[in-house]
Amino acid sequence: MKKITVFLFTLCGLALINAQTHTHISAQPLSYPNIEGYVTLKADLHQHTVFSDGNVWPTIRVLEALRENLDLISLTEHLEYQPHSADIPHPDRNRSYELIKAMEEAQEHGLLIAHGSEITRSEPVGHSNAIFITDANQLIQDKPADAFAQAKKQNAFTFWNHPAWHAQSPQGIPILSDFQKERIKKGELHGIEVINSVDYAQEALALALEHNLTVMGTSDIHGLIDWDYTEKGNHRPITLIFAKEKSLSSAKEALFAGRTVAVYNDLLVGRETYLKPLLEASIEVTKAAYMPDTQVLEIELQNNSSSDLIFENQMEYTFYDSSPVFEIAAGTTKKLLVKTLEIKDKLNLKLKALGCFTAPKAQPVLEWEVKVE
Amino acid sequence: MKKITVFLFTLCGLALINAQTHTHISAQPLSYPNIEGYVTLKADLHQHTVFSDGNVWPTIRVLEALRENLDLISLTEHLEYQPHSADIPHPDRNRSYELIKAMEEAQEHGLLIAHGSEITRSEPVGHSNAIFITDANQLIQDKPADAFAQAKKQNAFTFWNHPAWHAQSPQGIPILSDFQKERIKKGELHGIEVINSVDYAQEALALALEHNLTVMGTSDIHGLIDWDYTEKGNHRPITLIFAKEKSLSSAKEALFAGRTVAVYNDLLVGRETYLKPLLEASIEVTKAAYMPDTQVLEIELQNNSSSDLIFENQMEYTFYDSSPVFEIAAGTTKKLLVKTLEIKDKLNLKLKALGCFTAPKAQPVLEWEVKVE
Amino acid sequence: MKKITVFLFTLCGLALINAQTHTHISAQPLSYPNIEGYVTLKADLHQHTVFSDGNVWPTIRVLEALRENLDLISLTEHLEYQPHSADIPHPDRNRSYELIKAMEEAQEHGLLIAHGSEITRSEPVGHSNAIFITDANQLIQDKPADAFAQAKKQNAFTFWNHPAWHAQSPQGIPILSDFQKERIKKGELHGIEVINSVDYAQEALALALEHNLTVMGTSDIHGLIDWDYTEKGNHRPITLIFAKEKSLSSAKEALFAGRTVAVYNDLLVGRETYLKPLLEASIEVTKAAYMPDTQVLEIELQNNSSSDLIFENQMEYTFYDSSPVFEIAAGTTKKLLVKTLEIKDKLNLKLKALGCFTAPKAQPVLEWEVKVE
Amino acid sequence: MKKITVFLFTLCGLALINAQTHTHISAQPLSYPNIEGYVTLKADLHQHTVFSDGNVWPTIRVLEALRENLDLISLTEHLEYQPHSADIPHPDRNRSYELIKAMEEAQEHGLLIAHGSEITRSEPVGHSNAIFITDANQLIQDKPADAFAQAKKQNAFTFWNHPAWHAQSPQGIPILSDFQKERIKKGELHGIEVINSVDYAQEALALALEHNLTVMGTSDIHGLIDWDYTEKGNHRPITLIFAKEKSLSSAKEALFAGRTVAVYNDLLVGRETYLKPLLEASIEVTKAAYMPDTQVLEIELQNNSSSDLIFENQMEYTFYDSSPVFEIAAGTTKKLLVKTLEIKDKLNLKLKALGCFTAPKAQPVLEWEVKVE
Repeated sequence: MKKITVFLFTLCGLALINAQTHTHISAQPLSYPNIEGYVTLKADLHQHTVFSDGNVWPTIRVLEALRENLDLISLTEHLEYQPHSADIPHPDRNRSYELIKAMEEAQEHGLLIAHGSEITRSEPVGHSNAIFITDANQLIQDKPADAFAQAKKQNAFTFWNHPAWHAQSPQGIPILSDFQKERIKKGELHGIEVINSVDYAQEALALALEHNLTVMGTSDIHGLIDWDYTEKGNHRPITLIFAKEKSLSSAKEALFAGRTVAVYNDLLVGRETYLKPLLEASIEVTKAAYMPDTQVLEIELQNNSSSDLIFENQMEYTFYDSSPVFEIAAGTTKKLLVKTLEIKDKLNLKLKALGCFTAPKAQPVLEWEVKVE
Repeated sequence: MKKITVFLFTLCGLALINAQTHTHISAQPLSYPNIEGYVTLKADLHQHTVFSDGNVWPTIRVLEALRENLDLISLTEHLEYQPHSADIPHPDRNRSYELIKAMEEAQEHGLLIAHGSEITRSEPVGHSNAIFITDANQLIQDKPADAFAQAKKQNAFTFWNHPAWHAQSPQGIPILSDFQKERIKKGELHGIEVINSVDYAQEALALALEHNLTVMGTSDIHGLIDWDYTEKGNHRPITLIFAKEKSLSSAKEALFAGRTVAVYNDLLVGRETYLKPLLEASIEVTKAAYMPDTQVLEIELQNNSSSDLIFENQMEYTFYDSSPVFEIAAGTTKKLLVKTLEIKDKLNLKLKALGCFTAPKAQPVLEWEVKVE
Repeated sequence: MKKITVFLFTLCGLALINAQTHTHISAQPLSYPNIEGYVTLKADLHQHTVFSDGNVWPTIRVLEALRENLDLISLTEHLEYQPHSADIPHPDRNRSYELIKAMEEAQEHGLLIAHGSEITRSEPVGHSNAIFITDANQLIQDKPADAFAQAKKQNAFTFWNHPAWHAQSPQGIPILSDFQKERIKKGELHGIEVINSVDYAQEALALALEHNLTVMGTSDIHGLIDWDYTEKGNHRPITLIFAKEKSLSSAKEALFAGRTVAVYNDLLVGRETYLKPLLEASIEVTKAAYMPDTQVLEIELQNNSSSDLIFENQMEYTFYDSSPVFEIAAGTTKKLLVKTLEIKDKLNLKLKALGCFTAPKAQPVLEWEVKVE
Repeated sequence: MKKITVFLFTLCGLALINAQTHTHISAQPLSYPNIEGYVTLKADLHQHTVFSDGNVWPTIRVLEALRENLDLISLTEHLEYQPHSADIPHPDRNRSYELIKAMEEAQEHGLLIAHGSEITRSEPVGHSNAIFITDANQLIQDKPADAFAQAKKQNAFTFWNHPAWHAQSPQGIPILSDFQKERIKKGELHGIEVINSVDYAQEALALALEHNLTVMGTSDIHGLIDWDYTEKGNHRPITLIFAKEKSLSSAKEALFAGRTVAVYNDLLVGRETYLKPLLEASIEVTKAAYMPDTQVLEIELQNNSSSDLIFENQMEYTFYDSSPVFEIAAGTTKKLLVKTLEIKDKLNLKLKALGCFTAPKAQPVLEWEVKVE
């Protein structure tokens, strides 16, 4: 129910960058490496269209997803909030899903589309998305508990939306209600948004860890991805899902098993079990050789992810050139000169990822065994 | 009825420009100077939304228009083509207009909204937009002639859409049908699109001049302006209207009087009476002084329009530095060194605007009396 | 004592644009196609270093040339003007040439280095460069005529520098002196700069044609190429030499034979015999097929040169989409839709190159026989 | 003989980014705020020209400094290494200083020029710069100790260059020799380069702290600043000097007093006494107000320095939107939403600057008292 807020920045005086006539560069496609045993799926499971309070026809959401190279999306129209109903009566709540599930562009690029809906209630129930449902109409229930029960009956994966939203929690602190605790106990609530649109709540991460909920990141888009994210230099928030294969059923299995990392640009949040291997796979050692006539080892590190990563040296050895705190921008390479004091044939490279979190204040320390050429 | 074709260029291999994380620069707001006696209104009078075969809610069209700094828009839903009717029954064809006419963002920025509709028939009737209508429902008629008659009854300004469209004219040559000749004679057809979306037909300009039709340029947008135009480095096509003041009634009066220029980026097309003064107003002489100890006059020309303009020297005098054919990019300044052979106190600067057309092969020659400082 | 290490990254394939706080993008390497029977050499034969009134050590000129992908350069120190002589006594005027002729970076990239000098006298002698000399010291003569005679004795190619320079000609009009006419007659003056630094004089082109002089374009650089050209979005002016092969002797033969085109960014000036085939080779037809169900032929044109080229349609057929005046930017592709009225199996594509000159007011008309697929 | 005209356009207000085929954007001028009691001078005190082993005439160094908006430079030609002596006999070693000390461009922009020289010996003496000397010739001595003694006699400020340079120390670890210890004891060695060209040695910082040496950062430029730094997206390394006023004598007093911070792009290294107030002055709180109906405080932070700064939250309060680790890019503004749990009228904002070092592994924690509006 968060409203679209359009920032008309080009109208406000001087545009900072005045490129020739009028340049415009689109979103780069997102890319994250697979990890041992799993394929990494890029998913956005919280989106709206004209079929609830969004501003675009459902097909636009598919085209947007393809531009950012997503693997899985879900349209999650509000079940109880239908501001366009005067024009779009919307008797069948499966409609927006139906309109895109067989869309040619999606098929061609292998974009998976999961059927979903947003159960939209005031506190203490709050908003929750049920994904992998079979019939949205059945989720329209008088009593919230019945909606969740129905979602479970459909074997849906259900997660709590924007738990820290100030309109529902003026302190911005998510508090798990008795209703929600009951849902968790009954196996009717399985995940929690740690990142929703541009907001990250580290207390939501704490709740995820405490209550064994799956960590989620979503765009909650109502307007245009380009206007809300791309043109400000951002990507939409996504959930990386570590699935046994690229399929709807595998994605679902992985979500229930909690195999996710939430990503918003350079912020990655998730359980250490998945975040650490993801980051270690993201950085590839492409070279390791001593500078001639020195005991200085030159290592080349390539960031194969779409996130700029900030590292801090955790080794006993220091660097010849770089600051101990350094960034490897998405898709780029960084040369590191390590002063190993003597010629070695392998090095245990150890770096802390400062912008990534496995718990509210815990950043993962990564390790790579570097073989000297 | 032209379909949206989305070019997923970021997916196709390597993006040419790989800006840091993912840059994105929005459309620059459009700007064209007023001419003697008239204010210059930037208008796009051919647009679609979900209420016919477009893909966005009407409010998006207002936000797009504000980003490009337009003064006047019209939503022109197809009367006879309603592919979304299963979801949007659309009993009142004034609906998309109603949804935005009082929109706060439009009011705030003074964006004018004209009520319009597209009469959508096959050849020889073709497609035509009626703008400044009072009730779209009345335009739904069995016989095309009745639709035009009704538009006239509502005092609408009516123009022929994409006259060269290959789906209706496989040679791409617009041919005025007897039906249309009849409409012109009866005062029911007043304008013709010379530029529709990315297409310019110089034969349409010839027809405009021959039959005294108003020259029009429109986007005919169905998807997103950003995807179809901005991100390819283009602005949408517009019609510049030379109105006595910024109001709906003045814009209408100007359209009936034929006071327009059609613009698509650097292509400007219109009657010489309006195109010449527009271009002369677009170029401001901001400096004129002799280089010390020479007979070389330094002139500074500033392009106050949003079109890159290409000029060719038409004077007897030659330049000291520049090629006789040169561009002044939108919003920039060009220094010109003119070899006047002797010191003069004024110069009749004479340039042909190579990318602008007052007739199929006629480019206007512009003149400025430059006073030496 | 740390050595300068120049990373010629613009030469190595695709340059990444790395926009951040303080971006800086280097010159793109220049590229022009060969023409029938000749290889096209990119040459800058007018440059200065600390050995006359320039501001860099000679090696910098080689590195600059490699960054712009030149094939041939010459350092042309003023013989008579030595403002640094207090610090650089410069007894041997071959010195700056000697310092770079065997430079490893030049060898590696095949950069040819011709030995040259500038004969620097006041009017009516003016400044002239003698290239392919064997001993600069012999050109230091009391009488200008003796300097030219000596250059001829060394079989040098000699050309008149900046003939329109306002410091020597306050009207900016080049006037051939009796002294120079005498030199031409004696076979001691063979070329003329039509473009010198940022200046183009069409009267110099007229003189070239009238007196059968070779058309030259040079940077006359004293400071840094980056500061004078690159950072303003320009390339340095060059002379394209159409040589039988890439060698000093072939370049010299071609210069004496007048096989050149002077280039400054998008301005190309030269004899029709060479400019026309150069432009025709610069534009490659990469596709030609009819749009389905139409008589509209889609042609794809690729500009393989480093100059943005502006064209005007010269055919009887008109375009479906484009303005009759259009640009194909350097290294890009333009789709052209030609309305051929009936299906044809070949088309004689005919375009005038508006920014290119074969005589003061003459622009070449180019032709390509396009075979329909 | 046409003179070099350098257009210092990046100094004149807003630079327009002119992206086209071959773009090139110059270095942004550097800017760092003053701190309580001192003006902050941006200095580069280690540079070479053709008068030792550099590749440009001295005037280029002044123009480069103006482009980056430096306040103080010194040309430090090698006394003992003169590879250009065959061409530049260089009998008076004050020559490169003399050539620029009165240069008009320097005067106009208030650029201070200190007289300096590099004492260039092999290990264990190493290389050292003596700045604020009065006669470089006197520093040419057979015995290194005499050179240092002479520098002291001239009241020079002397510092150890690139102490970790692998050519002199193959492990890359700086080791203070007995000779150098003696110099420190005698008051003949006062500073140490912690950053030299692209290299940072944290062991050099440790030595600076242990032996009470002034922390220095220098470019050690031999070629072009643009090629070595700017076009790779970097600024040259500099020393920020906290002087009582902008003058040579104040800069000298500050250097002897150890009031410096070494800067290379986003790496700032210095004593906590100066680095902490510099960073606190660099971040300006431009707004602080509660979001309506919440206990979430919106703070706007503006980075007035030319370094991108990475911060980590050190408060008990968490953020509503941002990651606890975030960057504020140079010259930009960051909105921070702090969840203060209750409405407060002031907040002690506390952030650690992750990329800045006051000792090898110590990053400063900064504090700002934020008054709520």
